[in-house]
Amino acid sequence: MNTQAFLQETPTAEIVSESDMANAIRALAMDSVQKANSGHPGMPMGMADVATVLFNRFIKLDPLHPQWPDRDRFVLSAGHGSMLQYALHYLIGYPDMPIEELQRFRQLGAKTAGHPEYGHAQGIETTTGPLGQGLATAVGMAMAERLLRQRYGEEIVDHFTYVIAGDGCLQEGISHEAIDLAGHLKLARLVVLWDNNSISIDGPTSLSTSMDQLARFKAAGFEVEEIDGHDFEAIAAAITRARLSDRPSLISCRTIIGKGAPKLQGTEKTHGAPLGEAEIAATRLAIDWPHQPFDVPEAIVETWRNVARRGADERREWCVRLSASLQTEAFKQEVQKELPAELFDALNAFRREHVEKATKAATRKASEMVLGVINGATQITIGGSADLTHSNLTITPGLRDITSDDFTGRYIHYGIREHAMAAAMNGIALHGGFIPYGGTFLAFADYARGAIRLSALMGQQVIYVMTHDSIGLGEDGPTHQPIEHLAMLRATPGINVFRPADIIETAECWELALRYTDRPSIIVLSRQNLPMLRQGHVEENRSARGAYVLREPAEPRAVTLLATGSEVEIACTAADILRGQHKIAAAVVSMPSWELFEAQTPAYRRSVLAAAPRVGIEAAARLGWDRWIGEKGDFIGMQGFGASAPASDLYRHFGITPENIVATARKLVNKE
Amino acid sequence: MNTQAFLQETPTAEIVSESDMANAIRALAMDSVQKANSGHPGMPMGMADVATVLFNRFIKLDPLHPQWPDRDRFVLSAGHGSMLQYALHYLIGYPDMPIEELQRFRQLGAKTAGHPEYGHAQGIETTTGPLGQGLATAVGMAMAERLLRQRYGEEIVDHFTYVIAGDGCLQEGISHEAIDLAGHLKLARLVVLWDNNSISIDGPTSLSTSMDQLARFKAAGFEVEEIDGHDFEAIAAAITRARLSDRPSLISCRTIIGKGAPKLQGTEKTHGAPLGEAEIAATRLAIDWPHQPFDVPEAIVETWRNVARRGADERREWCVRLSASLQTEAFKQEVQKELPAELFDALNAFRREHVEKATKAATRKASEMVLGVINGATQITIGGSADLTHSNLTITPGLRDITSDDFTGRYIHYGIREHAMAAAMNGIALHGGFIPYGGTFLAFADYARGAIRLSALMGQQVIYVMTHDSIGLGEDGPTHQPIEHLAMLRATPGINVFRPADIIETAECWELALRYTDRPSIIVLSRQNLPMLRQGHVEENRSARGAYVLREPAEPRAVTLLATGSEVEIACTAADILRGQHKIAAAVVSMPSWELFEAQTPAYRRSVLAAAPRVGIEAAARLGWDRWIGEKGDFIGMQGFGASAPASDLYRHFGITPENIVATARKLVNKE
Repeated sequence: MNTQAFLQETPTAEIVSESDMANAIRALAMDSVQKANSGHPGMPMGMADVATVLFNRFIKLDPLHPQWPDRDRFVLSAGHGSMLQYALHYLIGYPDMPIEELQRFRQLGAKTAGHPEYGHAQGIETTTGPLGQGLATAVGMAMAERLLRQRYGEEIVDHFTYVIAGDGCLQEGISHEAIDLAGHLKLARLVVLWDNNSISIDGPTSLSTSMDQLARFKAAGFEVEEIDGHDFEAIAAAITRARLSDRPSLISCRTIIGKGAPKLQGTEKTHGAPLGEAEIAATRLAIDWPHQPFDVPEAIVETWRNVARRGADERREWCVRLSASLQTEAFKQEVQKELPAELFDALNAFRREHVEKATKAATRKASEMVLGVINGATQITIGGSADLTHSNLTITPGLRDITSDDFTGRYIHYGIREHAMAAAMNGIALHGGFIPYGGTFLAFADYARGAIRLSALMGQQVIYVMTHDSIGLGEDGPTHQPIEHLAMLRATPGINVFRPADIIETAECWELALRYTDRPSIIVLSRQNLPMLRQGHVEENRSARGAYVLREPAEPRAVTLLATGSEVEIACTAADILRGQHKIAAAVVSMPSWELFEAQTPAYRRSVLAAAPRVGIEAAARLGWDRWIGEKGDFIGMQGFGASAPASDLYRHFGITPENIVATARKLVNKE
Repeated sequence: MNTQAFLQETPTAEIVSESDMANAIRALAMDSVQKANSGHPGMPMGMADVATVLFNRFIKLDPLHPQWPDRDRFVLSAGHGSMLQYALHYLIGYPDMPIEELQRFRQLGAKTAGHPEYGHAQGIETTTGPLGQGLATAVGMAMAERLLRQRYGEEIVDHFTYVIAGDGCLQEGISHEAIDLAGHLKLARLVVLWDNNSISIDGPTSLSTSMDQLARFKAAGFEVEEIDGHDFEAIAAAITRARLSDRPSLISCRTIIGKGAPKLQGTEKTHGAPLGEAEIAATRLAIDWPHQPFDVPEAIVETWRNVARRGADERREWCVRLSASLQTEAFKQEVQKELPAELFDALNAFRREHVEKATKAATRKASEMVLGVINGATQITIGGSADLTHSNLTITPGLRDITSDDFTGRYIHYGIREHAMAAAMNGIALHGGFIPYGGTFLAFADYARGAIRLSALMGQQVIYVMTHDSIGLGEDGPTHQPIEHLAMLRATPGINVFRPADIIETAECWELALRYTDRPSIIVLSRQNLPMLRQGHVEENRSARGAYVLREPAEPRAVTLLATGSEVEIACTAADILRGQHKIAAAVVSMPSWELFEAQTPAYRRSVLAAAPRVGIEAAARLGWDRWIGEKGDFIGMQGFGASAPASDLYRHFGITPENIVATARKLVNKE
């Protein structure tokens, strides 16, 4: 729709130009930052023109139905420019974004957090701020759109993912992983608008980069174009072309940061601090904005509201199409990620079957078997791995690869890109329709840290399959052997970290990962074979309580051995020796999830931990274990980094052995 | 030197071709992996020809003096191909790499770890394995070479940094950050040899990438070229051109993974598993290598040893030049990173001065003041920031920027690239000559995790300046507020994590970071202002013991408040209230470094912690604190993520207040 046609729809007689509309954003941004005495006016002012054209002429959304599945996704990857988004939300008319919220920018409890926070205000599609995350998350959204469109057709799924990215987003490493993946999969509905203002915090970007970004994105398979980011028609033409491209698009928008502020525009001074009263007054003159702070003339607001009116119409038409579709129910279930009851029945049957068989398997192998059950019972899971498919064992029979020309599959080769994988999974989860899971080695959780944290902060159901979870990986050595990673993940709020000890716990933990829809799960799995430890007791999901008594001695406990994952077997052997050779009654507690155990009643926790001295055993760093072992307890694990050798040699070398546990337990018992 | 000229130097009459030399690598690689029954033969066999030409015709090193400062740096970024390096080391004649070490590949205690480990065998310039790290570390080495050359001239500093990188290295995000930085700084002595074999673990790289790597590197400012990686003369010509270029170079070496193995070459099957006896036998026939495993004909070994002879000659000539130089002593001191005694005197004076003045300052500001002293007293420090210079306060008067055409400066604008900054600092530290420090926000330690871990694993003196260390950063909100980061860093072996409470502790922690030359230090600093808490007691560096009693009450302790950084002030206020209003004698313990406290004697630790109940206070996750507070203690900190609001509102909102500490302490005391 061109501006002319659009304006005929406005209910006011007054002609409101896109320049007026953009200046409303500029004024709201500079005034909100000034009032908060904190924030980033430069980006919203610089990108006001681009955002105006994007929203005014193109974007499809309905502020009264912010969860409408077929809305366009708008991602402000340069999240510090949050006032751009809040100004847009106010102008378009999101009900939770009245002008008062802009006046409370960055204050406790306001919708207008310093950076856009998913779930905090309507219409914020993802949390941004850590640079590059928005861009990579958007890649996942565009993947989800394409996958869902494949399943339900363009009548029901037909939307774009628009990203505003800054220089920082493009400098961060995650951007490389993300654009390579997007280009490879030809995600044509992804449109990236680069705020090419040549300014970063330290000063001109020429201080630190000489990258030819257009050439770089082209190398990744993007359609690229550079425009004047203050030329409304050029912006519109570029977006139009991008939407028609069969590849993802980068539009380099040459802009002036802080545009409108006569003295400061074009400098880093506008980036991250209020402009100051004098410069704001001068800006009002310069952009001809003779209105009080937070006062936007009604004609301008009304013109902006046409975006919502257009979106509401589009949504109504979509509802009609959906109702007419044969797939209405399937689509609704999928969007709500409803898992069939049969899936959970099948998992119960799986536990019964394997406890009978006493199946011995590496937990990564057990995970593969469980995944076979899950992927067979639902179409909602989308699997993948960061180029370790046959190590992580994340693919199951019938899961075909997703490729640029075939989105009927359900398996993504994320490439050697842990960070983009995690961010893309966030995007897939946020988009709706799928539960993504993806594999890498636990040690490489490091590479994905930035995006894992966002999974947690946003409460997204993303399932990380992290195998090779200790020195048990053996010969690859210390770079590949996680030590501090369990502590790192357990310390992160809002994640369920699971470290199952055998195939039964693996099935239980997978079930929990599917049932906890409001948070990410990290399932940490062994490379090495592990025996079946559970003896019966599969009717209840015992891992659901986080920790439980796996072996209770006949006599009153003299000592309790606490362990997770592959070390539970070692603890059981130690308990047998203690009983057999030393007449010491040792209980073994398996602790597959500290978080879930922490959430139990104090009475339950006491019953599991009990009063006898405790030994914690985990082939990892001690940090965190003192909570469970107490001051009179002891810990057997890793004191430093690992080494390169066969796994069994390493367990001996680092003293994570039944013998050492026995000796430690005896010392504690004799002290009593 | 061409092959012909070179061969005239060999002591044997027999003509040994580079093809023979390369086949020695192939045979050693496949046989070692087979014997270990674990490892990666594909890459060494594929890159044997390239490595042969590089080492035979170009590389400058002396195996008998592996620390010779002017040696070329060789970085095997694709670290899984470690047998390439070990084979080379054996063939060239590193004394610690006899054939027996190759026979013990990947066994406990062998020099031949699964991935090249710095410090584990001579001549390994950096630990690799986590993909992309080697490439980014090499960028730091090339920076250090250029900086040192600027200071001492080409007579003394004149070497190249060669990298062999794989597809994985080039897919990882860190590679983007690294090559952007290298291209921007025009690091002409950096030569990257890409093992372009089109195979990754999951299969052909076309499963996951369509990147035009040549175009991408060109966009970053590299000289690029593609060659047949099995054409010796083409390889030599490309390396010659790369060495002459005024920009860093990428040579795309088209290779066949596992080249020589008739059935498996060119497939992912050769990547990460032994070839098997049958295929190895077939390979012997195919490459005409009729020798027993680990048996390399003497003529071939002797020819390889010419590399060492050439290097020894070059080193001798260099020693003569160095002796003749006026700068011999200065160079030696710099390479050994010797800090002048005056520096430490100046730091003592700084502490005395400020304790008298009772200077109140944010610890980031205090850090800036300390850095002023340090940077004024030595030229060895090289500063920088990931585009947060004026937030991290990492620049000091007189520190000029390093630019592509001026390496006389000492400050690096690393750009918005935390990961490459950390890796480059590793490279600078490994290269020798400098102590690098670099700043970012503590929350963005996430982005640098992979390289921080390697700083620790390699025991490199890299100093991280991580500011905005808690909810005290305020309005930027939860994405920017670290919660789990202290736990993540403290759980990592081999790092000193410092969180000073005032300007005195900040100076002490900086001194410790300079004195601990065998490990990285992370100095965690507040955004917000903090008072001077130390009352006298500056003659001794009290932070050196990790934790100490800052306030001891006159009466016997009823409770001990343990805190770090900005929360020590809050603990002191609480102690005053407890004493004044409730007649409860509360001690305050400041714990700037858990690691150093852990290293004290049990008696000292007991004297600090004492028997009274304890409250831990830190605006971060609880994980790890139970070690200090014990079962009867309590913790006041963060239970979840932060929020966006002014810092003082957040401290109140999350209950990290003197009032809450007082209430908690009273409860504990009354329980006793």
